[in-house]
Amino acid sequence: MLEPMTGSSNPQKNPPKAVNVGPWSFGGSQLQVIAGPCSVESKEQLLTIARSVRQSGATILRGGIHKMRTNPNSFQGLGDSGLPIVSDVKKELGLPVVCEITDPRQIEGFLEHVDFFQVGSRNMYNYALLKELGTIDRPILLKRGFSALIEEWVSAADYIRQGGNQNVVLCERGIRSFEKITRNTLDLAAVTWVKQNTDLPIVVDPSHATGIPSLIPALSLAAIAAGADGLIIEVHHQPEKALSDGHQALTLEAFQELMLEIKRVAPIFNRQLEAHLHV
Amino acid sequence: MLEPMTGSSNPQKNPPKAVNVGPWSFGGSQLQVIAGPCSVESKEQLLTIARSVRQSGATILRGGIHKMRTNPNSFQGLGDSGLPIVSDVKKELGLPVVCEITDPRQIEGFLEHVDFFQVGSRNMYNYALLKELGTIDRPILLKRGFSALIEEWVSAADYIRQGGNQNVVLCERGIRSFEKITRNTLDLAAVTWVKQNTDLPIVVDPSHATGIPSLIPALSLAAIAAGADGLIIEVHHQPEKALSDGHQALTLEAFQELMLEIKRVAPIFNRQLEAHLHV
Amino acid sequence: MLEPMTGSSNPQKNPPKAVNVGPWSFGGSQLQVIAGPCSVESKEQLLTIARSVRQSGATILRGGIHKMRTNPNSFQGLGDSGLPIVSDVKKELGLPVVCEITDPRQIEGFLEHVDFFQVGSRNMYNYALLKELGTIDRPILLKRGFSALIEEWVSAADYIRQGGNQNVVLCERGIRSFEKITRNTLDLAAVTWVKQNTDLPIVVDPSHATGIPSLIPALSLAAIAAGADGLIIEVHHQPEKALSDGHQALTLEAFQELMLEIKRVAPIFNRQLEAHLHV
Amino acid sequence: MLEPMTGSSNPQKNPPKAVNVGPWSFGGSQLQVIAGPCSVESKEQLLTIARSVRQSGATILRGGIHKMRTNPNSFQGLGDSGLPIVSDVKKELGLPVVCEITDPRQIEGFLEHVDFFQVGSRNMYNYALLKELGTIDRPILLKRGFSALIEEWVSAADYIRQGGNQNVVLCERGIRSFEKITRNTLDLAAVTWVKQNTDLPIVVDPSHATGIPSLIPALSLAAIAAGADGLIIEVHHQPEKALSDGHQALTLEAFQELMLEIKRVAPIFNRQLEAHLHV
Repeated sequence: MLEPMTGSSNPQKNPPKAVNVGPWSFGGSQLQVIAGPCSVESKEQLLTIARSVRQSGATILRGGIHKMRTNPNSFQGLGDSGLPIVSDVKKELGLPVVCEITDPRQIEGFLEHVDFFQVGSRNMYNYALLKELGTIDRPILLKRGFSALIEEWVSAADYIRQGGNQNVVLCERGIRSFEKITRNTLDLAAVTWVKQNTDLPIVVDPSHATGIPSLIPALSLAAIAAGADGLIIEVHHQPEKALSDGHQALTLEAFQELMLEIKRVAPIFNRQLEAHLHV
Repeated sequence: MLEPMTGSSNPQKNPPKAVNVGPWSFGGSQLQVIAGPCSVESKEQLLTIARSVRQSGATILRGGIHKMRTNPNSFQGLGDSGLPIVSDVKKELGLPVVCEITDPRQIEGFLEHVDFFQVGSRNMYNYALLKELGTIDRPILLKRGFSALIEEWVSAADYIRQGGNQNVVLCERGIRSFEKITRNTLDLAAVTWVKQNTDLPIVVDPSHATGIPSLIPALSLAAIAAGADGLIIEVHHQPEKALSDGHQALTLEAFQELMLEIKRVAPIFNRQLEAHLHV
Repeated sequence: MLEPMTGSSNPQKNPPKAVNVGPWSFGGSQLQVIAGPCSVESKEQLLTIARSVRQSGATILRGGIHKMRTNPNSFQGLGDSGLPIVSDVKKELGLPVVCEITDPRQIEGFLEHVDFFQVGSRNMYNYALLKELGTIDRPILLKRGFSALIEEWVSAADYIRQGGNQNVVLCERGIRSFEKITRNTLDLAAVTWVKQNTDLPIVVDPSHATGIPSLIPALSLAAIAAGADGLIIEVHHQPEKALSDGHQALTLEAFQELMLEIKRVAPIFNRQLEAHLHV
Repeated sequence: MLEPMTGSSNPQKNPPKAVNVGPWSFGGSQLQVIAGPCSVESKEQLLTIARSVRQSGATILRGGIHKMRTNPNSFQGLGDSGLPIVSDVKKELGLPVVCEITDPRQIEGFLEHVDFFQVGSRNMYNYALLKELGTIDRPILLKRGFSALIEEWVSAADYIRQGGNQNVVLCERGIRSFEKITRNTLDLAAVTWVKQNTDLPIVVDPSHATGIPSLIPALSLAAIAAGADGLIIEVHHQPEKALSDGHQALTLEAFQELMLEIKRVAPIFNRQLEAHLHV
């Protein structure tokens, strides 16, 4: 049975609600680092990346199978045929996995293989999808629409929670502005505001926010300082050959270095990265 | 059978593709005026408004039954139970009707009752829905996402057209900017650009773009000057009592006055409003 | 003596205040078309362009001598040494001239040669400059800052008017948004709003707003439909050789065609273009 | 004599250029915290605040005398008559002081009393002012225009530096976006980008960026993590009675707490706050 609705848009400060994904918890003192490729391309690719990011300390694996691409002729992901790959890699490494869901009709297949369902930025206003996700008992990673008001984003979480599924984690991934050097404008004030004014855990995606790998390490630390409960970072063993968004992926080595920095810095913000205890 | 794909994002200027809705045509010399309430509230309400806007010269009736509201506790529309109302009014007055569709599972019910399917601003990136709409033989009114690049919007039309359904009409309804006096910022340059660089017909929604009734008449004429193939305007017989967006609706009288202006101005831009021939 | 302050930000609708420039009036039934090059490059250049735009029906000549360029190494205009050129051409053709002023110390030189002082978009918030311009008796063309709220823009006019100089004409020239196809986003709703809620005349600059010559004709007509009291359009006899912003200039021929369209369309919006009476 | 121009917009990574203000240095391992009221209101007010922020560890005092207010009828600051107050407090406490300059004609008075000249957000494009500031030998704090591209901002620094004055410190203070909860959108990615791609030091103003006191502490730490060389924070002993922007000021107590956090966190980012050695 799901818990009764809490009402995330409640203006008074709510005690943070912990959301569990596999053995991990979002919203308490743990810091979660989700890492992996933009798109799942093959089992070999996913396994190579997953082994490395797990070794570096990532706690959850990311990998898209249904991609939302502007151009209908761009690579759209492997689709549901990618699910067994995700499932195999997850079992082999013991890492929970997050995949983006883009259609209510994918829910059944996802329930069998995917630990954490991501609603992408383009679907934040897809209330039909959100309502369906409110009826299941699986944690949801709800990305901010790239032009969504904070208020609309928190209300989108309520579309899920009113159905009974309280397990929503927000993800700030940059908003659209006039600035062109960065792909989007990372809004870390939104992270601090969400922590102070809602009961929702929140993570930050510096990869989509900036689109520039060299900016990702410093902004990951800044996100932790701003109060984020975790990070989601695109990593690829061969960024230049990736089928989507390779230009913004960290290499395996750059991710490893970043994780060392995160482990060094997180404790001063009272955050523990516990993955190394388990690997 | 549907026609083969044309490719709306083709950079060279395409000859405009006419899209038919009932007896009307978008993309040629006709000017279409779509009018009606934001939400269908009751048969009496819809009939009252529909009779009046038809009398004033509107060619198509609008009326939402599935509303996309930021807050899940706001009025969400009558849902599919509104379809018979829409259907009755349409038959009684002989006006084609446009309703917003928000979920692929609504298609079957809509096919029976609705002439023109609207994809709302919040669903412009809902590619799963767009792909489904590409497989049917019914015209689609594709609103611009309120933060969508023109390029993304035209590509969204291609998501529909690649499925075979060539009958897409774009709708510019204002984009998000820093300006706060108007609800959105109406981008009429986008209208002219679309007319010059794609084969898609396009209409303008000054109601959502501005949110201020007094601005709607002048901007409707400006839209025609910019090249729009039509307008979509919210009208309510009792705006102050409307269940949604009443503050931006024109009264029946204000709409009638606007139609007189449109009839006066349209011919100088080589546009004919032929509705009066049929009523 | 200057007139007492009116208070342009007054919320109640003020009767429009006419602003005169040479023989012309902004804010009544006349429509003014200001045309000319982005930068004054030489007397020959300015004279060639001025003769042609006057012949086509332009009522005021534009031409920058102090240019505001992002890069300090870009062409900055001829500076005060351009004033005699402007002055000669103006006398030779009998056309009033508008030039951008960028520093209070330019006022004295400008007073001798320039009929209409333009405050550019980048200086809309330069209150020190605005206050100085409030103490002289010369009409001011106040461009909207490209990220200025309408409210800030009207308040900037008050910075001038509170000094006593009531002769302010606003100019909408596009605002910054996320859209990239057009240089800026032309905000015609702001034009209608200004006409309805202030006593200030307003003109539209479709050249800077769009940066795309092919869009300028339709948007010029749309501006008139939205209520603009005039237009300001960049024209160059050799756009590809212009020292600044040539890509957005109309050719002499394109401007002539546009003027024919304006003369055809303006009367339906109760606007007269009276320049032809004088040439 | 001033140094030769460096060219801050040089795309290759330049070694950071240290800028000195009194005994302090921007751009090396020191972290500077600038604090004080939005506006200087009286000697008593400034002295009260200055004593407290110095005690808490601030290294530079801020206080505006020429205020840039949207409405010409709002409090505009004490003007040049505030200079002796600033000067007295500075001498009494031995704290360098930063004031905003809004007009080239203020330079002479400022040179006598002010250590660090601030160019405010509204004047970032005031190239006439920037060029004048390039001819003096005094450090300049150049705030980002609230809608300035990073590229334009760095070019604005070049307007100063090309005159010979190399002592420019940038200040990120939030940009305009569609979001309304925060006053502006703090762009920390711009901070990291500036550190990686220019030789300019940079500080962050979380007070203007957010307008919400409760967000300032976490975002101050995030700014340090993103690579900022310092912070500028509005502090007032009676925020509710401040003549301008009181709603966004920290109280003396809140600032003291923040400084304890900064002292705790800065070393992990290899930053030293050395003020306590001197007080």
